[in-house]
Amino acid sequence: MQPRVTIIMGSTSDLPVMESAFKFLEKYEIPFEVLALSAHRTPDEVAEYAKTAHERGIEVIIAAAGMAAHLPGVIAAMTPLPVIGVPIKSSLEGVDAALAMLQMPPGIPVATVAINGAQNAAILAMQIMANGDDTLKAKVIEHKESLKQKIVKANADLANIKDYKFKTN
Amino acid sequence: MQPRVTIIMGSTSDLPVMESAFKFLEKYEIPFEVLALSAHRTPDEVAEYAKTAHERGIEVIIAAAGMAAHLPGVIAAMTPLPVIGVPIKSSLEGVDAALAMLQMPPGIPVATVAINGAQNAAILAMQIMANGDDTLKAKVIEHKESLKQKIVKANADLANIKDYKFKTN
Amino acid sequence: MQPRVTIIMGSTSDLPVMESAFKFLEKYEIPFEVLALSAHRTPDEVAEYAKTAHERGIEVIIAAAGMAAHLPGVIAAMTPLPVIGVPIKSSLEGVDAALAMLQMPPGIPVATVAINGAQNAAILAMQIMANGDDTLKAKVIEHKESLKQKIVKANADLANIKDYKFKTN
Amino acid sequence: MQPRVTIIMGSTSDLPVMESAFKFLEKYEIPFEVLALSAHRTPDEVAEYAKTAHERGIEVIIAAAGMAAHLPGVIAAMTPLPVIGVPIKSSLEGVDAALAMLQMPPGIPVATVAINGAQNAAILAMQIMANGDDTLKAKVIEHKESLKQKIVKANADLANIKDYKFKTN
Amino acid sequence: MQPRVTIIMGSTSDLPVMESAFKFLEKYEIPFEVLALSAHRTPDEVAEYAKTAHERGIEVIIAAAGMAAHLPGVIAAMTPLPVIGVPIKSSLEGVDAALAMLQMPPGIPVATVAINGAQNAAILAMQIMANGDDTLKAKVIEHKESLKQKIVKANADLANIKDYKFKTN
Amino acid sequence: MQPRVTIIMGSTSDLPVMESAFKFLEKYEIPFEVLALSAHRTPDEVAEYAKTAHERGIEVIIAAAGMAAHLPGVIAAMTPLPVIGVPIKSSLEGVDAALAMLQMPPGIPVATVAINGAQNAAILAMQIMANGDDTLKAKVIEHKESLKQKIVKANADLANIKDYKFKTN
Amino acid sequence: MQPRVTIIMGSTSDLPVMESAFKFLEKYEIPFEVLALSAHRTPDEVAEYAKTAHERGIEVIIAAAGMAAHLPGVIAAMTPLPVIGVPIKSSLEGVDAALAMLQMPPGIPVATVAINGAQNAAILAMQIMANGDDTLKAKVIEHKESLKQKIVKANADLANIKDYKFKTN
Amino acid sequence: MQPRVTIIMGSTSDLPVMESAFKFLEKYEIPFEVLALSAHRTPDEVAEYAKTAHERGIEVIIAAAGMAAHLPGVIAAMTPLPVIGVPIKSSLEGVDAALAMLQMPPGIPVATVAINGAQNAAILAMQIMANGDDTLKAKVIEHKESLKQKIVKANADLANIKDYKFKTN
Repeated sequence: MQPRVTIIMGSTSDLPVMESAFKFLEKYEIPFEVLALSAHRTPDEVAEYAKTAHERGIEVIIAAAGMAAHLPGVIAAMTPLPVIGVPIKSSLEGVDAALAMLQMPPGIPVATVAINGAQNAAILAMQIMANGDDTLKAKVIEHKESLKQKIVKANADLANIKDYKFKTN
Repeated sequence: MQPRVTIIMGSTSDLPVMESAFKFLEKYEIPFEVLALSAHRTPDEVAEYAKTAHERGIEVIIAAAGMAAHLPGVIAAMTPLPVIGVPIKSSLEGVDAALAMLQMPPGIPVATVAINGAQNAAILAMQIMANGDDTLKAKVIEHKESLKQKIVKANADLANIKDYKFKTN
Repeated sequence: MQPRVTIIMGSTSDLPVMESAFKFLEKYEIPFEVLALSAHRTPDEVAEYAKTAHERGIEVIIAAAGMAAHLPGVIAAMTPLPVIGVPIKSSLEGVDAALAMLQMPPGIPVATVAINGAQNAAILAMQIMANGDDTLKAKVIEHKESLKQKIVKANADLANIKDYKFKTN
Repeated sequence: MQPRVTIIMGSTSDLPVMESAFKFLEKYEIPFEVLALSAHRTPDEVAEYAKTAHERGIEVIIAAAGMAAHLPGVIAAMTPLPVIGVPIKSSLEGVDAALAMLQMPPGIPVATVAINGAQNAAILAMQIMANGDDTLKAKVIEHKESLKQKIVKANADLANIKDYKFKTN
Repeated sequence: MQPRVTIIMGSTSDLPVMESAFKFLEKYEIPFEVLALSAHRTPDEVAEYAKTAHERGIEVIIAAAGMAAHLPGVIAAMTPLPVIGVPIKSSLEGVDAALAMLQMPPGIPVATVAINGAQNAAILAMQIMANGDDTLKAKVIEHKESLKQKIVKANADLANIKDYKFKTN
Repeated sequence: MQPRVTIIMGSTSDLPVMESAFKFLEKYEIPFEVLALSAHRTPDEVAEYAKTAHERGIEVIIAAAGMAAHLPGVIAAMTPLPVIGVPIKSSLEGVDAALAMLQMPPGIPVATVAINGAQNAAILAMQIMANGDDTLKAKVIEHKESLKQKIVKANADLANIKDYKFKTN
Repeated sequence: MQPRVTIIMGSTSDLPVMESAFKFLEKYEIPFEVLALSAHRTPDEVAEYAKTAHERGIEVIIAAAGMAAHLPGVIAAMTPLPVIGVPIKSSLEGVDAALAMLQMPPGIPVATVAINGAQNAAILAMQIMANGDDTLKAKVIEHKESLKQKIVKANADLANIKDYKFKTN
Repeated sequence: MQPRVTIIMGSTSDLPVMESAFKFLEKYEIPFEVLALSAHRTPDEVAEYAKTAHERGIEVIIAAAGMAAHLPGVIAAMTPLPVIGVPIKSSLEGVDAALAMLQMPPGIPVATVAINGAQNAAILAMQIMANGDDTLKAKVIEHKESLKQKIVKANADLANIKDYKFKTN
């Protein structure tokens, strides 16, 4: 099936963090591809990828990187597609990666999500693609409604904790 | 004309920062509306806005806020639309606002751009709406190409600086 | 028994941190309720809760949240009651959560305590409710006096450490 | 008139920041006193003040301080009253003062508000005193409703800006 | 033996960090006492201690504290003796404690050493007391010379690592 | 007159900050010398100075530096005297200079004071030299008592502000 | 004359900061060129430049950039030459730019100098090129010796300040 | 074999971090020596080393240090050779060490690499020495080409992960 999203990472060591993005896209049946590319190790391949992704039918690019995380910005410079950056925490609590994506200069935005926020990157990708796609729009709304369930369950769990004598709910 | 983007800010004091977003959307003839809303001062109006924006034809929401910048996250919780957050620098160099947008918990992303990065928010909005809109796609590419002109001019300026005797270009 | 304090958290994963608040309120026999609510997952329930809590006899609200911790601020926007925020450390050493509570804009305060400072939130709640409640006032003073005991014990322990030959106390 | 709130600062140089607290308390006709005290310059006077304030009818203490801002914590150690800390920005963007108030150890809370957040300290004091005081409760609700006016005015201002041709609201 | 230095901490949980100070003072036969005192739990005892320490023959005070570390500053406010502060790392990497000591306002210095830098506090105490004490002066010089031994041993160890073929020393 | 303190700075541009140290030492008639030395520009002169200062009768060294502020640590490595470091704010709010002094490794302490805290460095020097010098001891106590005057004056000023109708002191 | 160093910046707005690099290279008669290039605006031109600079006789590349400063890292990925990064302070005190250069992942170093440290970049370039160039080696040593002059002058200036009566040098 | 690079560290505890530098230099057959030296414990030995290294044929110095990391700056002050600084993470996430190297004042650069970035220090050393050494130039290019292999392998690994049904590459 033709992928609509590319998830790019610089190393298979980012897989555990990025897994929640894979799972989200699968759950909502959004086809995606996963590539290893590095702004520093394979600059030519990054350029080749970035310049042609939209021609291959890719609609959104998710790029994860740690440290001086140039990957999303470098791709954003060479594609008309929206690029979502996921800062990976590997040093300095992930602050270095977050700033290297967030603080893009005027002209070339990277849509940055939380440090290690892979799932949110996938949700944002779905929201972007839902523009003009009624099937995806319905899935976005389905996702939003599913969020409440975790809270319903948490309240049920809290109600079962009997240790706190003055607790009343 | 039916607006496709809403730009929301908490105060007219954010106008000087947000002006570059207005100018960008105007330049590329993307209709937008500007609203003052506050997650803290007008929570009901924010909820009303957020729950109905997509029904009014809005495709992307840009929300600017400073300090403990809850506005984009609160809107994102109540809309299926993609929300772009612009952290406004009003204290702590804007770090407080940036973290309050960037570090959204799993489930509800805010696409965060640079501190005071209003123009990039507008560009990102255009990129998002270009998904399935060939006219906008052409404008995204036109914008990307225009970026080079600033560098061409800078090199021309540098070539005219005669003060540095060993400079050769 | 009618609860006077609500402790709100976004997830049962915050229970280990918040436990010291439960214990403190129990020790001083202050009835409280515990709720799971999320500014992002259940915004309508948060609004419903916040707008009616004071009518149900709640006097103080303690809200714990991590990352872009909007919960206390969002509640504070919709209740006349004092809201105490407990920043939960889940990323960035808890700095993100602390700033998202502390840096509330003018008009809507959140009384912020230390990162993971659940016990201090409970003490502050007791101090607030002691205003016009002589029974609680006595308990506040009792608590203050109890604080010395830990130091008395520490000095006794230090006096028993015989390893340091020049130590004289 | 018997003051119900004390506002303490270490220097008259803090007056410009603290003025918004004075104005808020005056607007809602809450009697207050203003004192200069320093945890470091006048430790005995601070102790004397803190140990007796509640006997004089003071209900809430607001303490402002900059740098290694010990004043609110030192007062909190010696009073049963709730203490609100206002970190003053005089170095390091106010981060030093904020941490020296926020990060109080277990047992002695300081209700910390935003850096230079004097108005919010006054609002929080009113919310605390409104516990068991119906007149103040009504004023808290009056204040909350007044917050919307600034947004109403901002929208009116935005509607009058004719420069943006695609703006539609 | 009459103690010349007091080492104060707020809890026996600081003992593992402070042990290197004990060992240093013992090694150079400088009599010291160890006390548990808390600026927040036992403010009166702190005041009593601080106001009389110099009358008991104490020459230097070392105070360790974590979080909003007020202890050294509060003591410094009430003693003519030099006070050395040791920031204890218990949250925020120790930055909160370091700032709460370092950033003392004009008039009342705290001689701050590294986060968890207990040994350096003891060395600094010895250097201070060596002023006008020739026996201690000789010990300071003896200490300085001993520092080289660790490097001599490190070079010997490095010379024995045979794994690096191009290594020549 | 034989100087007892050396104040070292890397540039005359630090004079405005260091002036409060000069004034304090003059006020209490403590003879001092002022030198320009740089750990990086004049390493040999720094070594020469540091190794001989105690032989010339210097009792305490105050070293001010900005950015990667090596000067106090480098001097401390080569003198038995106590070294007080004054971090100068010239970049990064002075955080770089503060950490480069504060975080000295075990073995060689620098007594660090606040960023731009020149006066406190001078006070600390006086406290150190007062060890075994009854004249200076009296001056330390005189200084401590003088601190209250600023607060007395502040209270007088506050009492004269008539603008706040509910203010009662 | 054939340039040996390229100084690259993203905008003529960096000229005031970079001027000290120009002056240093001129003073020591090291031929250089100045180019405007942007990792984001002109990625193809950056690639073209980086891949061929060493063939044109360039020996060292100095790249200045602000915010999410990708330029030096992107160039370093495509050249065998040593790349020196100058973080430009334009937001967040320059911390964003510094981290985006400093924290390069393993494999592709950027030799990072101080925020706005253009002169040091030029000095480092000279030190690098002096490897195997005796004329430049002599200039490096000449530069090192010149550093003392500023300190000599500072001491002369200090000696002429007569205001401090106890100052003796 | 005559060493061309010195790797200096303050303690054998830095060996695990620095090992990647050793391995890189060995792989490319660049002779190096390893020394333990400390700016604070052995200042005279550091001075002796730094003043003579270039006379012994050393071309580049790599200095690793943690906390208030003065070692590279102190060496840079006394050698004409380029000095590469490796900040060691031992406290504050390595930020203290990074700033103490990066923020060198004008006149004496330290080429700073990433926190714990020992391998990059070795690569940078090779790039510096390759200036005027065709054998090393070839090795730099060989190294650059080898970087791609890790990405090729990562893509092969990703292609073998069959768990993601929509993944297409």
